[in-house]
Amino acid sequence: MTDSDHRLSLSDLTALLTRIFERHGCSPEVAAILAANCASAQRDGADSHGVFRMPGYVSTLQSGWVDGRAVPQVHDVAPGFVRVDARNGFAQPALAAARPLLLEKVRRNGIALLAIRDSHHFAALWPDVEPFARQGLVALSFVNSMACVVPHGGHRALFGTNPIAFAAPRAEGDPLVFDMATSAMAHGDIQIAAREGRQLPPEHGVDLAGQPTQDPQAVLQGGALLPFGGHKGSALSMMVELLAAALTGGDFSFDFSWEQHPGAQTPRTGQLLIVMDPSAGNSGAGFARRAEDLVLAMRAAGQSRMPGERRYRQRAQSDREGIVLDAATWQRLQELAGAA
Amino acid sequence: MTDSDHRLSLSDLTALLTRIFERHGCSPEVAAILAANCASAQRDGADSHGVFRMPGYVSTLQSGWVDGRAVPQVHDVAPGFVRVDARNGFAQPALAAARPLLLEKVRRNGIALLAIRDSHHFAALWPDVEPFARQGLVALSFVNSMACVVPHGGHRALFGTNPIAFAAPRAEGDPLVFDMATSAMAHGDIQIAAREGRQLPPEHGVDLAGQPTQDPQAVLQGGALLPFGGHKGSALSMMVELLAAALTGGDFSFDFSWEQHPGAQTPRTGQLLIVMDPSAGNSGAGFARRAEDLVLAMRAAGQSRMPGERRYRQRAQSDREGIVLDAATWQRLQELAGAA
Repeated sequence: MTDSDHRLSLSDLTALLTRIFERHGCSPEVAAILAANCASAQRDGADSHGVFRMPGYVSTLQSGWVDGRAVPQVHDVAPGFVRVDARNGFAQPALAAARPLLLEKVRRNGIALLAIRDSHHFAALWPDVEPFARQGLVALSFVNSMACVVPHGGHRALFGTNPIAFAAPRAEGDPLVFDMATSAMAHGDIQIAAREGRQLPPEHGVDLAGQPTQDPQAVLQGGALLPFGGHKGSALSMMVELLAAALTGGDFSFDFSWEQHPGAQTPRTGQLLIVMDPSAGNSGAGFARRAEDLVLAMRAAGQSRMPGERRYRQRAQSDREGIVLDAATWQRLQELAGAA
Repeated sequence: MTDSDHRLSLSDLTALLTRIFERHGCSPEVAAILAANCASAQRDGADSHGVFRMPGYVSTLQSGWVDGRAVPQVHDVAPGFVRVDARNGFAQPALAAARPLLLEKVRRNGIALLAIRDSHHFAALWPDVEPFARQGLVALSFVNSMACVVPHGGHRALFGTNPIAFAAPRAEGDPLVFDMATSAMAHGDIQIAAREGRQLPPEHGVDLAGQPTQDPQAVLQGGALLPFGGHKGSALSMMVELLAAALTGGDFSFDFSWEQHPGAQTPRTGQLLIVMDPSAGNSGAGFARRAEDLVLAMRAAGQSRMPGERRYRQRAQSDREGIVLDAATWQRLQELAGAA
């Protein structure tokens, strides 16, 4: 923190971001949901999915590529299956619209599925799953994105960074939550490395010619990322395409083109959520208690940080001390809000 | 193939393995299911999960650790949730017993879950999911096993090799199927490397002192495996413990002990299956057609082999030319069958 940094509460940052989204073509409902999502990510210390994303949101809205006023259509297609047509809008309002019906189905059936199609997901994935764990449920989500990852053994980008997120409740602590790109690195982190002039670790990317590179610019300019963990990560990325696009009716990561929309940055694809109610299984001591036992065992085995823990620590600090934005970021947000 | 090799049909190998299972304490029902499973894995070229496993099955049955005559109890606990108590028997008969009810629930609800507890899974996982894809469904399965994998950042084995298997139908080809250990290597492959005196690749295992090693014997004798892909593989392995053990009511990989049962090799844990009906989503061109489009795109991007393809090729060859067993393996099976 330097003298020129700004400190904001979560609600003040949310209000500022809401103004930006509304000013650039979002309905009040969509603006409120996206602003809360983005401000929460910033609060949790997610540099690549917090306010860093705002210029991309704005340029995409300006390009006409996404509909910031889309009203998602929720379809109750089967006792355990909710389908949402996001109608070329963002994925988060689609999830919000379907959430009550999804929860009702999970409680009744023990498991239910939410398939979102024709949606733009430009945010972190953990905010979509963590709330289910806070209600005692177990959630899995899959989102495909835009062709920037070469399948294992291939030479051309095809998959998106295709994250998988998982959340599970614990009896005595914040939920266990992970959100992992199936690429060797998240796309936002490549952009940050490029901006900061840092090299990438080995075996993370290839250049335009398909040759290994550690230069983030070469990856961004015609190059591509590799999957994490070799053929296994590549198979998981394929699974994400099948679940988030083929099963939802959304586009694959290689299906859409931004050519007619300069400035567009959000992938127009799909998202799948699977939510389970562990209490239906009558698992003896109870799921959250067993999860707590697992955490104790992981700590005893030497694992010092549980999935999600870094975010919870940053969240607590932000709630205590405010969310810190540097002067340039603050200035940029003021400009986007039309206040500068 | 040498002169001393033996060639068998799938049905002859299945019959031989059935005799072995029955001779060593399995009921006819259990013996038939395990024999078909093991013979199919051998037919598909899975050296680590085919007849290589038979001595382990037999010594485990002899130790009294597993009940080869267990009759699984199927519980219809919610409209989308089937629970099976395997009653200290094998997982495959539990899945077989619950399969009709699970399929009925999937067709009605669009998604359903099968939670198997108190079960022993000593086989490959793809045979559990592939049949669902052949019926037009999408299946995911998770099995935890025995503590032999150190969590990322830790120093002691805690997780099992904890595989994840996935299967999805294609319009014009065999299903896309993968079955991946979340460890850097499958346990059976470590055993095979040890038997053949081969070194392991780097970053696959640690020795008794927690130090990196490439010696498979050091991994097997008090050492441990590492997860694949660093912290991401470790998080997936944790998820498998939560889904296959905590959610089913089965044991964690570190919960059980073989000490009272010398010769026991099968983990007594749990298994979870999630099965989805993509037709419920009304995904336009249809899931299998979209999956076919993805395969075409993967091939165009340079991926030469689809997940599962190597097995299908070996399967076709075995069906054409017979399943080949070397003389020592054949002799061993004869001895186990009491025919030598």
